[in-house]
Amino acid sequence: MKYCFGVDIGGTTVKIGLFEENGTIVDKWEITTDTSEEGKYILPNIAASIGGKTEEHGLAKESIVGIGVGVPAPVTAEGVVNGSANLGWTYKEVKKELEELTGLKAAIGNDANVAALGEMWKGGGAGEKNMIMVTLGTGVGGGIIINGKVLVGEHGAGGEIGHICVNYQETDHCGCGNRGCLEQYGSATGIVRLARQKLEQETRPTSLNKENVTAKDVFDAVKAGDEVAKEIAVEFGRYLGYGLANLAAVADPAVFVIGGGVSKAGEVLIPYIKEPYMERAFFADKDVRFVLAKLGNDAGICGAAKLILDNE
Amino acid sequence: MKYCFGVDIGGTTVKIGLFEENGTIVDKWEITTDTSEEGKYILPNIAASIGGKTEEHGLAKESIVGIGVGVPAPVTAEGVVNGSANLGWTYKEVKKELEELTGLKAAIGNDANVAALGEMWKGGGAGEKNMIMVTLGTGVGGGIIINGKVLVGEHGAGGEIGHICVNYQETDHCGCGNRGCLEQYGSATGIVRLARQKLEQETRPTSLNKENVTAKDVFDAVKAGDEVAKEIAVEFGRYLGYGLANLAAVADPAVFVIGGGVSKAGEVLIPYIKEPYMERAFFADKDVRFVLAKLGNDAGICGAAKLILDNE
Repeated sequence: MKYCFGVDIGGTTVKIGLFEENGTIVDKWEITTDTSEEGKYILPNIAASIGGKTEEHGLAKESIVGIGVGVPAPVTAEGVVNGSANLGWTYKEVKKELEELTGLKAAIGNDANVAALGEMWKGGGAGEKNMIMVTLGTGVGGGIIINGKVLVGEHGAGGEIGHICVNYQETDHCGCGNRGCLEQYGSATGIVRLARQKLEQETRPTSLNKENVTAKDVFDAVKAGDEVAKEIAVEFGRYLGYGLANLAAVADPAVFVIGGGVSKAGEVLIPYIKEPYMERAFFADKDVRFVLAKLGNDAGICGAAKLILDNE
Repeated sequence: MKYCFGVDIGGTTVKIGLFEENGTIVDKWEITTDTSEEGKYILPNIAASIGGKTEEHGLAKESIVGIGVGVPAPVTAEGVVNGSANLGWTYKEVKKELEELTGLKAAIGNDANVAALGEMWKGGGAGEKNMIMVTLGTGVGGGIIINGKVLVGEHGAGGEIGHICVNYQETDHCGCGNRGCLEQYGSATGIVRLARQKLEQETRPTSLNKENVTAKDVFDAVKAGDEVAKEIAVEFGRYLGYGLANLAAVADPAVFVIGGGVSKAGEVLIPYIKEPYMERAFFADKDVRFVLAKLGNDAGICGAAKLILDNE
């Protein structure tokens, strides 16, 4: 039996899983992300934790394929990160350093791309080779899988779908400095922004409260039949569906997997996205499925494990 | 020495090249595309022509790697075309049929994607692995190369960049049925449309004539310093640059290669596209080059040759 480790580095915790190569999770745990001193302890802490678990489970070093890692930053094909604000890293040779610390092979990827790989392996995209993962969280992240491989790109910035422009008339700025990014409408923050704009001038009765509305409130209200909330969902879905239609013209996927905090609203989301998508998609791209992500917080460790297994 | 054939099937002629595996063109010629009877003679004619040239050059069958083919239609990973209006084909197993006719291995791709592969091998994108080819002709075509491989997609419709929406306010329809497609602004036809709209309400002196203006006229006038023409070029470039910024957020290329009839205007085009691109591109995508295509009409046969060589 062969094993591997999947590591998902976040700004607060590092999630780690020990996998059999068929995908079975043998063990999973978390350690705290120590971002002090430019994050210099993060990789040594991971190496120590993996070393301890290797001993605990009595694994022979030869039986371990290696370590896959997802990082919240663009990652080059050589496993180098040129800065991650969340971790305190500036220039960091993640692959090289982790291999030296552990004596194991390592493969490094961007966390959103790695999560997409996880969903393709064991989640919403299982069985497909061409997939776009759309993560609707605080921002909008993405991961594009082409013929079974993550689209990394020249600067490790492939699949940055939150920053395609879907509204050239927008006057508000996105965090990235542009105006009209998908992230300004499709993220949890974006939905709140759309809701506030709507509620500002709304006279009909609604359960939504302008002062403290959340993305969850909006979709709860949609489920309860609130007409104002439905119109907010329509606007959210139009930007998202139009944006995904543009992505499809480029990448031609078999399936869109919708994940992230906003996706916890459930199946109610799908028609709001799919209808405007179908209205705008190039004819050859209309034969596509929309599914919810299935792995939740495990997508990162699963994808990281797959990354190192594919690397063999 | 090993050889291969590169075949570029168009609606009027089929271009064929005999290549050494290092890329040297030994011979190139054309045959007429016989689209009669649902295009049933096209592949037999190609097979006969290749057979004749194999004899003429005294090539041993073992020295021929195979035949690469570019087709004006989406092509599945299995080398199947589900209809090509230009050729008269409905369902056609191109790879299977051509292999049976010739006894050689064949690899089939969409013509725009194949031309992109050619430009990466021997043209404007030489030395790069992540490239987007933008073909500004009657329409806007494209080919996306990721890590050295063509992005084919689930339905063979990857890289259909002419049909990303760049103007959600557009009221005119594109040939595909949508409104606001890049093709409506970035193609030769699109430039004429923009020019006519401009000239309709223009009072300043200009060398452009509303009745019979062409894309070439516009860029000739730009070179001569015509202010009205320059403003048309600015509008063309803005849609194209904004569209390419969205593509970069998805595919993160090292280089954009600009080809097609419109690109014959030359280097004058580049700043009109690059400036709006830089204004809108995600920060990680700003380190990108814009170059003109170099292979002209040979891009198709070169890319087709590369397709079969990579397939080995």
